[in-house]
Amino acid sequence: MADVLSGVASPSDVRALPEDALPGLCEALREAIITTCGRVGGHLGASLGAVELIVALHRVFHTPQDALLFDVGHQAYAHKLLTGRRDRMHTLRQANGIAPFLDPRESPHDALAAGHACTAISAALGLLSGRRQLGHSGHVVAVVGDGSLTGGLSFEGLNNAGGSPLPLVVVLNDNQMSISANVGAIPALLRTRSARAFFESLGFTYLGPVDGHDLGALTRALREAKASSRPVVVHALTKKGRGFPPAEADEQTRGHAMGPYEWRDGKLVRSRGGRPTYSEAFAQVLGDALERDPRVVAVTPAMLEGSALTGLKARFPDRVHDVGIAEQHAVTFCAGLAAAGAKPVCVIYSTFLQRAYDQIVHDVCLPGLHVVFAVDRAGLVGADGATHQGAYDVSFLRPLPGLTQWAPMVGDDLAPMLATALQSGGPSVLRFPRGTLPDLPPELGHAEPEVLRSSPAASVGPSGLPKPAPSREPPGTPALATQDTSPVPGARWLKRVPGARLTLVTLGPLGLSALEAARSEPEWSVLDARRAWPLDEAALLEAAEGGHVVVAEEGTVRGGLGSAVLELYAASGLSPRVKLLGMPDVFLPHGDARVQRTQLGLDAAGLRRAGRALLEEESR
Amino acid sequence: MADVLSGVASPSDVRALPEDALPGLCEALREAIITTCGRVGGHLGASLGAVELIVALHRVFHTPQDALLFDVGHQAYAHKLLTGRRDRMHTLRQANGIAPFLDPRESPHDALAAGHACTAISAALGLLSGRRQLGHSGHVVAVVGDGSLTGGLSFEGLNNAGGSPLPLVVVLNDNQMSISANVGAIPALLRTRSARAFFESLGFTYLGPVDGHDLGALTRALREAKASSRPVVVHALTKKGRGFPPAEADEQTRGHAMGPYEWRDGKLVRSRGGRPTYSEAFAQVLGDALERDPRVVAVTPAMLEGSALTGLKARFPDRVHDVGIAEQHAVTFCAGLAAAGAKPVCVIYSTFLQRAYDQIVHDVCLPGLHVVFAVDRAGLVGADGATHQGAYDVSFLRPLPGLTQWAPMVGDDLAPMLATALQSGGPSVLRFPRGTLPDLPPELGHAEPEVLRSSPAASVGPSGLPKPAPSREPPGTPALATQDTSPVPGARWLKRVPGARLTLVTLGPLGLSALEAARSEPEWSVLDARRAWPLDEAALLEAAEGGHVVVAEEGTVRGGLGSAVLELYAASGLSPRVKLLGMPDVFLPHGDARVQRTQLGLDAAGLRRAGRALLEEESR
Repeated sequence: MADVLSGVASPSDVRALPEDALPGLCEALREAIITTCGRVGGHLGASLGAVELIVALHRVFHTPQDALLFDVGHQAYAHKLLTGRRDRMHTLRQANGIAPFLDPRESPHDALAAGHACTAISAALGLLSGRRQLGHSGHVVAVVGDGSLTGGLSFEGLNNAGGSPLPLVVVLNDNQMSISANVGAIPALLRTRSARAFFESLGFTYLGPVDGHDLGALTRALREAKASSRPVVVHALTKKGRGFPPAEADEQTRGHAMGPYEWRDGKLVRSRGGRPTYSEAFAQVLGDALERDPRVVAVTPAMLEGSALTGLKARFPDRVHDVGIAEQHAVTFCAGLAAAGAKPVCVIYSTFLQRAYDQIVHDVCLPGLHVVFAVDRAGLVGADGATHQGAYDVSFLRPLPGLTQWAPMVGDDLAPMLATALQSGGPSVLRFPRGTLPDLPPELGHAEPEVLRSSPAASVGPSGLPKPAPSREPPGTPALATQDTSPVPGARWLKRVPGARLTLVTLGPLGLSALEAARSEPEWSVLDARRAWPLDEAALLEAAEGGHVVVAEEGTVRGGLGSAVLELYAASGLSPRVKLLGMPDVFLPHGDARVQRTQLGLDAAGLRRAGRALLEEESR
Repeated sequence: MADVLSGVASPSDVRALPEDALPGLCEALREAIITTCGRVGGHLGASLGAVELIVALHRVFHTPQDALLFDVGHQAYAHKLLTGRRDRMHTLRQANGIAPFLDPRESPHDALAAGHACTAISAALGLLSGRRQLGHSGHVVAVVGDGSLTGGLSFEGLNNAGGSPLPLVVVLNDNQMSISANVGAIPALLRTRSARAFFESLGFTYLGPVDGHDLGALTRALREAKASSRPVVVHALTKKGRGFPPAEADEQTRGHAMGPYEWRDGKLVRSRGGRPTYSEAFAQVLGDALERDPRVVAVTPAMLEGSALTGLKARFPDRVHDVGIAEQHAVTFCAGLAAAGAKPVCVIYSTFLQRAYDQIVHDVCLPGLHVVFAVDRAGLVGADGATHQGAYDVSFLRPLPGLTQWAPMVGDDLAPMLATALQSGGPSVLRFPRGTLPDLPPELGHAEPEVLRSSPAASVGPSGLPKPAPSREPPGTPALATQDTSPVPGARWLKRVPGARLTLVTLGPLGLSALEAARSEPEWSVLDARRAWPLDEAALLEAAEGGHVVVAEEGTVRGGLGSAVLELYAASGLSPRVKLLGMPDVFLPHGDARVQRTQLGLDAAGLRRAGRALLEEESR
């Protein structure tokens, strides 16, 4: 079977194959997908379900003259395998390897760079409109999962496409699932005759439903769509995980995204790290909060699995809301919950929080509602790559009045920070990274780190205008013990040297690297800022006393914590030498996050190097 | 008739009125709305169309036990008049006066603070869910215009509400218009039997269509909805501008938002400033670009009127796209257009750009597509108030790799900056304020200001990772003459004093105030940054030479231009004293923008004061 695939170097080879070779091609594609994902992990389920669909698309449409836009791109491993990338598929999701999603820079057969859901219809309509405007021909096809239909951007695209005379082809790859089960009215809609009514009411010709694993039926429907002179939807019913028993059997996710595995003697052997992730630790802490306070409610936009909330959903079915791929709704729904007196905790990835920016500004912060955002995957995300990096949350949230931004360093910070946020009465963020919890270093294992009380945030408001939003500064004591829910004050000195020449100021887990960096440096202090905003001014002013400050964060340096520290020093008339470390001004590609941290100088050695360089510059 | 209204101090008074008094009440409400808007301007059309609907809602539902959530709130002047705010309606949209939209801080009968469209359904579902969670009863009603249905957040809300067992009531106030004509498939959908199919397919009971000016029919439908034990939509057909002939006759907008006017002898007398606004000047420049280059395309999310694009839509019907209230789609559609080789210019208000943040990050900047964002209403917006301030665009856009942010100071900057952006090959922003074009001050009237060439942006990228996105730095000469399309280099010295002690660095029109401030200060220079990002490093390093720098911008100081300047100085090892001026850490309310500018110290006097204070601090 591998032979069939090895003879396919490009889509024209797919079109040249005799029809009776196609089932073998599909089998070979599945084998390659299963092998690849077993080796390096990846989006197994959706890609297995879309094999026949992708073969049929390449039989009917001629890329790159015709454009195929795969929403998200996680369903399109077969497309990668058919477009000249087979020999490199073993490098999938690894540094300098094949990208996790699609990217025109990787292949001319990829019309769209995307890793977030719901973009394909709008982008496809733009592409078609632009091509027509410039006198170019060619068909444009958006391939969209039913999970993406719950996202508002998809609907905005459907409304505009359905109202347009352009013959956009939308292929609905309906595997009856989002990442977990799909939610809201959409699943029932797609299972009944309502599907036709829905799409026709939006101005589309509706073709289907078609068996998405029947190559003949698919090809006929796609040819009909190709011949249409107006917008058309082809509704294909597929099975996520098709052809791989463990994925088909997994009712939760059908193998949506899996780490590496082995498939031996009919059994799936997966390696699992023993240590819990930040997500899992947060879910545990959130469970305790749900247990303790009936007002607490959790909301996730389709990330029950990724945010480790499936257990909580089972325990608290009415208080853990999966709203589907609908980040905007997730946040505005939380605003409504908070207005009712509930205490919503919106658990959301940093990169997807970007989707709900206006809802955070306008629906939560402006009325000052008590919503907690648990921002997962903040910082480097590793294999998911450029579209998923959690690089911008601190920067885009910091300007918002009244929003407090917490960053736990170790697992034991989660409970007190969540408790503080749940007691604050206003909006807060807890940002934590992707990955497993760290060991506590010896300094934290037996010492009681000294903690400073915070001072209020700087005020800019002149007379005649409202005062700045009060910084909600509960009194209290530090906490490093799990389940301690005492209010968290400001920054925390991880190492405090009298008369220190230099202070390393960090956000989140970088504090641990800073401690390690400072171990060999008797004149360095280390301050865990604990909040990106508002700043603990007293602690940060003390940090400046030695004249040298390095601020390190896992996020862009532009507008981040370092920038906040510079603003504070400028307002205070202080001029220490300050070096900012963080994520660079590029969209960082996929790779091993630990390696990238080293390359970026965000490990202990890098922090030490930066500190020494700052001191040396001065002495030169 | 005014008598009827004066007897109504709260909704319970509305419910106590005999039925035959209601037509008189509606007439009195219309009179009050027309009078108020004539005096102070406002959202006339939608509010006139919703009079009977609001009276019927208050007859059937009992606020605040029941909650009415008006989407946007611009349709709800009658609600304000019926809930104890009649005596203060003449202060509408003015400093310390009645808010332009709704706000629970203004009245317990306002369940939701909102000025952006599409939030009501999601917020209402959250409110209902939270109330049930906490054991509270009461009905929750979302009143939504048909224009808001094109926005994805509304659809996300419908999908979640329709899939929920909670008896949410959605009232569709269908006046067959968005701000201008509604767009896409929705208008046709609502005009046919498809409306029932559409809402039923989404899980709602559908009631209607109902004549939205027939109090009896409305009341019956709302009572039926109130009795429902599941989600229900009441579809009311209304006429925007109803009862005011000039608004009814205006086919473009039906009097959507109007400035003050007089209504004399059956004629509408409106005062219009003679000077064009930045929006109008930009539209003219955009028209020239459309004329010159067939690849240029304009896209607006429902702001043909506000962005002064109606003339261009008439001249270039196929190249000016109104996509409706759908900011996410607007941006991703532009990404598709750019991928096709077109040159899209997305004209959008700063506050609404927040809706499309992820689309800017993920769909435009990540693939580096050539899209130009013309960001209107950047900075203070005056009467529209807190929900509409253009405070955050510089801060949330600055971290994005490869995105250039221009800020024209005077009208003559628009053409060269747009030309530069259209030649750049990558994403750019032009941010300009609400308001009329300024006079050129004497310094600019006859001098040829000296202009520095820019130096490349600082690089953070370490080895082993991609280089920072190249700053696209075209060579060229400065331009102050309209229609000059020479590429714009970096910053511009408005006043350059050899050996200056202090430099005022500004963004956009603030340069003019800075020039005025510096007129009496022989040792001060003035630098118009012209770009918020990337910085003109050479010019800004020179600005630091005197040891004192004031950076002023009309946007939040958190993460803005000032913050960028501090980052540059830190990276360069410079320590001038720097004072940052900008919008404060609060959501600024409605008021007169000129007065607010003075209060914030963002006028010439304020800049002078800040500069002198900085110099005095030093000498103390």
